[in-house]
Amino acid sequence: MKAVGLIVEYNPFHNGHAFHLQASKEAANADVVIAVMSGNFLQRGEPALVSKWYRTQMALQNGVDLVFELPYHFAVQKAETFASGAVSILDAAGCESLCFGSESGDISAFLQTISFLQEKQGFFNENIKRHMATGISYPKAISLAYQGLSGAEKFLNLAKPNNILGFQYIKAILEQNSKLEPLTIARKHADYHDEHFASETIASATSIRKAIFSEEMESANIGQYVPEPTNRLLQQYKREYGGFHCWERYWDLLQYQLVTTNLEELKEIYEMEEGLENRLMAAALSSTNFQEYMQRIKTKRYTWTRLQRLSVHVLTNTKKTEMKSMPQKAAYLRLLGMTETGKEYLNKRKKQFNLPIVAKLSAFKEEEIIQDIKAARIYAMAFPKKIRTQMLLQEFKQPPIFVQK
Amino acid sequence: MKAVGLIVEYNPFHNGHAFHLQASKEAANADVVIAVMSGNFLQRGEPALVSKWYRTQMALQNGVDLVFELPYHFAVQKAETFASGAVSILDAAGCESLCFGSESGDISAFLQTISFLQEKQGFFNENIKRHMATGISYPKAISLAYQGLSGAEKFLNLAKPNNILGFQYIKAILEQNSKLEPLTIARKHADYHDEHFASETIASATSIRKAIFSEEMESANIGQYVPEPTNRLLQQYKREYGGFHCWERYWDLLQYQLVTTNLEELKEIYEMEEGLENRLMAAALSSTNFQEYMQRIKTKRYTWTRLQRLSVHVLTNTKKTEMKSMPQKAAYLRLLGMTETGKEYLNKRKKQFNLPIVAKLSAFKEEEIIQDIKAARIYAMAFPKKIRTQMLLQEFKQPPIFVQK
Repeated sequence: MKAVGLIVEYNPFHNGHAFHLQASKEAANADVVIAVMSGNFLQRGEPALVSKWYRTQMALQNGVDLVFELPYHFAVQKAETFASGAVSILDAAGCESLCFGSESGDISAFLQTISFLQEKQGFFNENIKRHMATGISYPKAISLAYQGLSGAEKFLNLAKPNNILGFQYIKAILEQNSKLEPLTIARKHADYHDEHFASETIASATSIRKAIFSEEMESANIGQYVPEPTNRLLQQYKREYGGFHCWERYWDLLQYQLVTTNLEELKEIYEMEEGLENRLMAAALSSTNFQEYMQRIKTKRYTWTRLQRLSVHVLTNTKKTEMKSMPQKAAYLRLLGMTETGKEYLNKRKKQFNLPIVAKLSAFKEEEIIQDIKAARIYAMAFPKKIRTQMLLQEFKQPPIFVQK
Repeated sequence: MKAVGLIVEYNPFHNGHAFHLQASKEAANADVVIAVMSGNFLQRGEPALVSKWYRTQMALQNGVDLVFELPYHFAVQKAETFASGAVSILDAAGCESLCFGSESGDISAFLQTISFLQEKQGFFNENIKRHMATGISYPKAISLAYQGLSGAEKFLNLAKPNNILGFQYIKAILEQNSKLEPLTIARKHADYHDEHFASETIASATSIRKAIFSEEMESANIGQYVPEPTNRLLQQYKREYGGFHCWERYWDLLQYQLVTTNLEELKEIYEMEEGLENRLMAAALSSTNFQEYMQRIKTKRYTWTRLQRLSVHVLTNTKKTEMKSMPQKAAYLRLLGMTETGKEYLNKRKKQFNLPIVAKLSAFKEEEIIQDIKAARIYAMAFPKKIRTQMLLQEFKQPPIFVQK
């Protein structure tokens, strides 16, 4: 059985994802689709719209065969670390290829860009430093440094978010000496950050989330952009939990955490740099919601995403020391769900895996998984009191989701 | 000008307090009444019904002339530490006497009991140890050890809560070589913990709070037990902030704090002993409200009050190391409010005070006052978002309250 790996967040699973999934399966000539998926908190520093268990169901009902969780310490991270963790999981799960969506759609462009940058590494790093010194953000500095290299225009456009991610995936494959074959599919119609619907059937997750929150989830509005299982599961989630997750639902807790923690302790939070703790504390004291707080802490130096990730680390009380002790590659495969095909694949192949499969948490007690447990518990804090208690315990009780089809 | 000192919480100020205030003024033949009052969190480990600023107004409109705050690190403490901090403040503020309410009402009984216990100290301490070994709580062990001393029946009944407090006040006066003359007034009608109204006009603060929460503050119900200013200020507080403070309003935050903090860190919280952190964490995960949580953590060894205080320290993230570094006696006099008489007294006497008066926080930056600021901010977290921000900043902006009369 041949497996293709995908790196996903499915927030939520939409028609663009369905297209990418099918195209990847064909391009890789694969029998099995394996997804490594961020847990309850995402790479951009946000709580996911619905829990990882519901997003796993969406994935399985839409064609994915196996879902593994990307641990918190890889998921809520800059592209490089995110990519490194995800690649190590797909590799350990026996995938033969990794297929990602990109604006470019041309795998040779990625490989050539990597060679080009290796040649120009000295100039490149110097350029980055020079741009950083002007007070701009790190991603912006990278982008400008790259554009400043003579000849760069012939290679990948690294101003595009999915090109950047793909670039990091391939770098991770090379660095880890992974046997994963990199493949890419050109993204259709919607740009990653688009807030407006741009096509009849394909829309970005950002625009779908926007519609969900602004329309109070009138299903008709997003029905044309998501497969039927997504729509049904979103409705079900709303009925069961009374709503969806967004930063505003965690504002009270974030504000409380900032107000309660001494400045000296805040300094120890992962990614807290250059006196940001003073800025965050002052904003917490004077803001009445998360948007206002973000506007207050925003600077030229730090991207919105970087500051949102920092705020997730504050919310989860994640320390620099904790993150320092984390391995560069995944240490386990946390199985969130499988189809019959996925199960068959696991039974055939798992003996060759070089990482343990964690199906039930109670059987596994590693420090790094404690971070995922904590993240899941904090994610549950957005629920009403009664449902919350049930969710707080779920992380230990929930077996992997099984979808028969 | 002769000043009598009172140690109070006024949660809220009721007719019993008014009686005690007048009787104390007469007994001490005083011109000025000075109260040292717990801030937003109280000795029994609870948030005060209304803020310290409103309770200060109640005090001033009901006959107190000067209100100083008892800092958090003295207020949320066992009787001994509470007494020690309060006595040091009244002494520093130039009071000639301290007048407390007690079940006994006989000051010589207190003094005799102290001598009696000094004589029997060896037996007494041994008795306490022996009782503690059976797994009961410390206050219970003290009470039994005391009753076990032959001759104790002739002295003070130390099973009564106000006798215990008074006993500690006098012990503190002796230990600090204070010139405060101890006076006591017999309490009228209501026992400290009474939950039901026992008289036409005098009721315990406990029963008044119970009525306030159960009747959703129909003022008519408590009007006969509190002076007019209290009733008016309670109504005003409700209009302004939408309700009163109780533990349930902080449950989400306490639960979040417990769930977010690693067990190793929880161990560092002040008063966390003998693996209590595991008990608190387990209760936080499975309880849907504060009452349920308290029921779960309750043991024979720890009193309800002790566990509530511990929970306040969790809520405020107060560490063992912080508390260890705190002085045994107050380091400043935080002025919350004054009448014209109080102002006159201050003007005449403050040069002789051996502690600085803190009227505006911005002029004072001691580590210990940071704890009070934090407590005030966390107290504000029970308010709706908009009011909360205003309250979060109040601690720095609010000048002492001045009542002209």
